[in-house]
Amino acid sequence: MSASPHRAPGYVEGRPDVVVVGGGFGGVSCVRALRRANANVVLVDRMNHTLFQPLLYQLATGVLDDSAIASPLRQVFARQSNVSVLRASVDGFDVDRRCVLAGDLEIPWDHLVLAAGMKTSYFGNDQWEAMAPGLKTLDDAHRVRGRILEAFEQAEYVRVWGETDEVRPWLTFVVVGGGATGVEVAGAIKQLAVDRLAPEFKDLDVARCRVLLVEGGERLLAAMSTKSSAAAAKTLRSYGVEIRLETRVVDVSPEGVTIEQGGSREFVPARTVVWGAGVAGNALGAHLAEAVGLETDRGGRLEVSGDLTIAGRDDIRVIGDLARVPIGETGATVPGVAQGAIQMGTYAGRAIAARVAGRAPTKKPFRYFDKGSLATVGRGKAVLDMGRLHIAGFLGWLVWAAVHIAFLVNFRSRIAAMGSWAFAYIFQTGVNELITKPAAPRAPLESESEGSST
Amino acid sequence: MSASPHRAPGYVEGRPDVVVVGGGFGGVSCVRALRRANANVVLVDRMNHTLFQPLLYQLATGVLDDSAIASPLRQVFARQSNVSVLRASVDGFDVDRRCVLAGDLEIPWDHLVLAAGMKTSYFGNDQWEAMAPGLKTLDDAHRVRGRILEAFEQAEYVRVWGETDEVRPWLTFVVVGGGATGVEVAGAIKQLAVDRLAPEFKDLDVARCRVLLVEGGERLLAAMSTKSSAAAAKTLRSYGVEIRLETRVVDVSPEGVTIEQGGSREFVPARTVVWGAGVAGNALGAHLAEAVGLETDRGGRLEVSGDLTIAGRDDIRVIGDLARVPIGETGATVPGVAQGAIQMGTYAGRAIAARVAGRAPTKKPFRYFDKGSLATVGRGKAVLDMGRLHIAGFLGWLVWAAVHIAFLVNFRSRIAAMGSWAFAYIFQTGVNELITKPAAPRAPLESESEGSST
Repeated sequence: MSASPHRAPGYVEGRPDVVVVGGGFGGVSCVRALRRANANVVLVDRMNHTLFQPLLYQLATGVLDDSAIASPLRQVFARQSNVSVLRASVDGFDVDRRCVLAGDLEIPWDHLVLAAGMKTSYFGNDQWEAMAPGLKTLDDAHRVRGRILEAFEQAEYVRVWGETDEVRPWLTFVVVGGGATGVEVAGAIKQLAVDRLAPEFKDLDVARCRVLLVEGGERLLAAMSTKSSAAAAKTLRSYGVEIRLETRVVDVSPEGVTIEQGGSREFVPARTVVWGAGVAGNALGAHLAEAVGLETDRGGRLEVSGDLTIAGRDDIRVIGDLARVPIGETGATVPGVAQGAIQMGTYAGRAIAARVAGRAPTKKPFRYFDKGSLATVGRGKAVLDMGRLHIAGFLGWLVWAAVHIAFLVNFRSRIAAMGSWAFAYIFQTGVNELITKPAAPRAPLESESEGSST
Repeated sequence: MSASPHRAPGYVEGRPDVVVVGGGFGGVSCVRALRRANANVVLVDRMNHTLFQPLLYQLATGVLDDSAIASPLRQVFARQSNVSVLRASVDGFDVDRRCVLAGDLEIPWDHLVLAAGMKTSYFGNDQWEAMAPGLKTLDDAHRVRGRILEAFEQAEYVRVWGETDEVRPWLTFVVVGGGATGVEVAGAIKQLAVDRLAPEFKDLDVARCRVLLVEGGERLLAAMSTKSSAAAAKTLRSYGVEIRLETRVVDVSPEGVTIEQGGSREFVPARTVVWGAGVAGNALGAHLAEAVGLETDRGGRLEVSGDLTIAGRDDIRVIGDLARVPIGETGATVPGVAQGAIQMGTYAGRAIAARVAGRAPTKKPFRYFDKGSLATVGRGKAVLDMGRLHIAGFLGWLVWAAVHIAFLVNFRSRIAAMGSWAFAYIFQTGVNELITKPAAPRAPLESESEGSST
């Protein structure tokens, strides 16, 4: 511990300290909403960038490059003079002394905003992670992309080698979870194989690869309308994606996945598994809850009041996926999606700005405005729910593309993404299909400890 | 070992087998020159892509994305029907049975072309590699980029933490080797700091970072004219790069670099070292030499005849950096540059195509045509030698940019690079400055075993 508490770079004596932990949609929106506040704002993140997570699956399937969906936080806030970006891993909170603890640093707060988000959850089977990477970070996406591309190379290698029994498992891809991520990844893998890789593998019919989408519930995209669920399923099936509903994954091994449906089990030999099934709160949510004597819910979220503060502490706000925000008296809560985090970030930032300025913050509690939901189902097709409006197919995709481009954090990202998309769409080619690790003499079946990154 | 030798995918009975080992400039040119040959061509590489190595330093300094300078080999040859791309690590050669050995595979040849290129050499100090990565592969470039960007973050972290003695070593960058790579990297690091990072670090004057370029010889760019050397040195000095000529590196440790000039030693505390000093032949050159009973030269190169075959074997050709090709009776040899490899690849491919077609290959020995040499010195400036013509500055850079764009392997790469360059140039911004590893509580001084990849 340093003797004296850390003062933010750019620190101005006498101004209140606002510490925002987490540079995702929630944290970035909150800091933006504080742009005119007479405060010392510190944005702490263990990564140096903010990430447009809804497009991670495009990175994972070689359609976009990193720089299209990620922006360095320092770059995002280069022109906002009251904020300092600090790249550091937060370990916990000293709520009595009002300090965020990050390694050797103590970062004092007058107002704390926790926006640390979620991590991939394997429902108690963390040993599956090595075989079935999730999709939350750039490294995750590189790992998934490396695995997918490597699987096609390995299929070709074993074919040449004459081990024909090995070809099929290398050409079988199991995607776990029928939410937006699973649907998007499953469609994208099949299209990668059919549109882009098939002409490159001359003697191996990679287009016939098997993509299995496994969902525990009774329909895909459970958060969307039944109409959109049905449209998504129909489109995926037309590509040749196999959909298994009401099916649970009971084991993942380097050789494949064991699934269970209605009491009967089946082993699917598969070398590539992508996990899109679950998320749980970042450990920082639990740390904070413990520090203030509260409990998290089963998903690791903290209950917040209407003003997004936690019980008994008007100096601590939790926003984004980590916040459990009831929607009226319906029993429902705000879903863990980008628009929820953005809206909470803006609300929290404005409330703190008002407090800092000596004004009373709005008495209106936070209210989630559902702008609708979207999911892509392969290139050029999407499903879209906006209130009672349901659009599927190319029109849905146009809306999807427009919304996503508009959302992208800064100007440069927008340009890069538009360029890449337009190119990929017109020429039916990917932007990045590179594997950067040398080939092993034979690919081991053991799980790798290190992702094959780009 | 498999019982029967491998037959290439797309194998046509009765056609000669041509095996090309290595998918760099030489190998790709050779395969292209074989496009009309009635042969079974197999291109073996341990990577799935060909790489435009002269631009690696731009990746390493965040100007370009991977996909701008690398193309998947399968994509490059998707439309050339007589070639099969095989991603595999070659272990050696059975020259009696005429088989390339790659793991479990035996790949038979009627004609073998070895184009495996060079690796970074630490002149017997391989333990320096962990501290001082070279620049030969995409992973190298990711590692260097991660180190450079991380160094600025660490400088800020220790500044905030109050360890002011630690700031300077984190802001000191030592580039070893005053050839094209060293000159380009040194200029690019300084410009990254001044043009792009300075506005993002509000309280740390990153523009004042120290960049030290260490060269053992008496001038930079020894392969170019003295006029170009002087122009490059002048430009680098104007950016604030410190140049140390006739200076050797005698030790590299996690704390810094020890250099020696004229008998006196100096320790330079520096956390970031980039190695651009030396290359040596890939181990496959030595394997082949041993198998056929020849010796490699000090640089690991094999002597080839005027037709690029090796002594006593008209079925084995060595091309590119691995080939030692005398230029007339001058005592000089063809330099290890892209144009040399490309010209040799084309020559070898045509010679094999003639043999395959039953024609006698040209009697003219390979002759290197020196189109000139180029090096960039920061953004928008370059030095250029073409015969007696020497151009420096912006005009040189225009030529440099045109030449490099024209060289880029395929259409898509050209588009991507032009877009990125234009963007980076106009808006003075980088395309990719992302670190994808979470921050450690404190960055260890120990060398990492694993690169911080994109």
